[in-house]
Amino acid sequence: METLNQLRRDPVTGIWTIVVQRGKPLAALKPKQSPKAQNPDPNESCLYCEGHEHETPPEIFAIRDHSAAKNKPGWRVRCVPENDPVLQIHGELNNRGIGIYDMFDGIGAHEVVIESPHHHRSLIDLTAPELTNVLTAYRERELDLKRDFRFRYILIRKSGSDGDESTTRHAFSHVLATPITPGRVREELQNAQQYYALKERCLFCDVIRQEREDELRVAAENAQFIALCPFAARSPFEIWILPKQHETFFEWSNDLEPLANTMQDLFRRLKHLLGPYQLFMEVHSGPNLSAGKKRGYWKTVERDFHWHIEIAPIIGSYSANEMSQSFHINWLAPEQCRELLVAAVEA
Amino acid sequence: METLNQLRRDPVTGIWTIVVQRGKPLAALKPKQSPKAQNPDPNESCLYCEGHEHETPPEIFAIRDHSAAKNKPGWRVRCVPENDPVLQIHGELNNRGIGIYDMFDGIGAHEVVIESPHHHRSLIDLTAPELTNVLTAYRERELDLKRDFRFRYILIRKSGSDGDESTTRHAFSHVLATPITPGRVREELQNAQQYYALKERCLFCDVIRQEREDELRVAAENAQFIALCPFAARSPFEIWILPKQHETFFEWSNDLEPLANTMQDLFRRLKHLLGPYQLFMEVHSGPNLSAGKKRGYWKTVERDFHWHIEIAPIIGSYSANEMSQSFHINWLAPEQCRELLVAAVEA
Repeated sequence: METLNQLRRDPVTGIWTIVVQRGKPLAALKPKQSPKAQNPDPNESCLYCEGHEHETPPEIFAIRDHSAAKNKPGWRVRCVPENDPVLQIHGELNNRGIGIYDMFDGIGAHEVVIESPHHHRSLIDLTAPELTNVLTAYRERELDLKRDFRFRYILIRKSGSDGDESTTRHAFSHVLATPITPGRVREELQNAQQYYALKERCLFCDVIRQEREDELRVAAENAQFIALCPFAARSPFEIWILPKQHETFFEWSNDLEPLANTMQDLFRRLKHLLGPYQLFMEVHSGPNLSAGKKRGYWKTVERDFHWHIEIAPIIGSYSANEMSQSFHINWLAPEQCRELLVAAVEA
Repeated sequence: METLNQLRRDPVTGIWTIVVQRGKPLAALKPKQSPKAQNPDPNESCLYCEGHEHETPPEIFAIRDHSAAKNKPGWRVRCVPENDPVLQIHGELNNRGIGIYDMFDGIGAHEVVIESPHHHRSLIDLTAPELTNVLTAYRERELDLKRDFRFRYILIRKSGSDGDESTTRHAFSHVLATPITPGRVREELQNAQQYYALKERCLFCDVIRQEREDELRVAAENAQFIALCPFAARSPFEIWILPKQHETFFEWSNDLEPLANTMQDLFRRLKHLLGPYQLFMEVHSGPNLSAGKKRGYWKTVERDFHWHIEIAPIIGSYSANEMSQSFHINWLAPEQCRELLVAAVEA
């Protein structure tokens, strides 16, 4: 019998961590001495490249040409289970205590959205229609995974520096469905709930209203979306993209095209300013009501919470600051970032 | 007049960030193309090296040979104001709101503890007596800065990857005194408070009790201290060092020598396992009561909270995981880390 990974909660910090039981070999964890691994012919060995469909588990979702068959070339975006998943889809949650500790078995979904069939195409270089396809895949996975009442939250996350050979890796995002609500999202839900209880207004709608008046931190805006450099941005060029109308769930949005346009415009401006960069991105949608409602969680979430996408280019000191989570030091004020972004013309 | 930095609070995440107003030039923020900067003769240009004392602001504290004069060679550990501080010591806090946002002027202390006079000596290679000197400097700065009622918290933090030329930089730690309690520490204080309210026992004492019974995660132990690989460790080889007796404040400890012994032993074991590595470390002492008491903050902290030191080697995927804070994935279980640590002999 396979050893299950575990979802463990730290009683001091309150943070949940997926603890991998089989473990990586120590050699894979050692600090890199030589920073870049060579990857002479990636297409030969990359299982996310077009033509390698048989090397991944069968696909869960794909957008493909009409004539193309499932699990064959001809796709544009493809979602498959992670080859080496940290969570396992089958089984009971087995929520239990070990003395003062809390844990679950590592039950959940761990999938990847392959953002392009081409190895050297980065998310930040996709066209708006290509980005719309990626967002459509995100939406479909949110909708599908939220049918499973075991999962409290579906987190869609892209971290360009995932893995060791980040810059030479095929572009993909993670989809993680978990029986708990991830820490940062839970804090956002709680803060939004407290704000509504106090003000009877959505916190995010108030932020949008104030930012539109100030104009100092509005990086982009169209009829449906606004992109902000947040007032207390944790890193240079952190940007939040929010629907201007109050909406709780990303997956209910019908505006993926204008969203893709906004993203593509920002990605291009960032590239003009920074040169090639790796992207951090998280989609913060509302939690899974089918899991939560029966336990009474987040019952006011539809009025409290406002979905949004958090992005940030991964640059120099950012990861160092993030690591020591007690404090963030941001070396470029959001107002200055906004000015630079607005002034940036196409590269 | 100089523009003050600002301490800004994000209303959605609740996270405080120091936003630097003068900003770094964009070039300094760009992702590195060439990963290692060459540093041909560091001693010539490094202002933290012995013999360069006149290039730093005057020292605040030092441990030196009896014959040696202040701000001259002959020291072992030296504390000076950060050359390019993110917080400024003089001024009023100016706590205020801007619409829905909260902020302070960037008032606080920002100092560095230079851990050795020698450029190529890393903290992880110091002898136990040398480490005792470093810990003594930490203690003195905690004690001194806590006399200032403007500062709610004194954070001592080491992040090996600070700055760009991490591996070629002189070893130092940061001391940050701030008018707010940093997020992660505040969460620990709150969780400990809630636990005590529920159980009438210190959470940390209960953790120590359970871990001593289990033995599965005890990496080291002497008469005064215990070192644990925490149950829900966020990264491989995350280790917490705690006094076995209930103590709230690091700076009141009289056991810096046994603490240094424990640390030195762990650092050496880690090096045996990982090779040379950069260290992340934070000292989590109790908050500043002279600032808090008059406002009634943390009035039960002396029974609730238990000081400790959190350390983790900075390895491959750790920073990537940390960055996307919503979730931690730990690729090596604390039980396995503990086994490896205990089995590690001197390199």
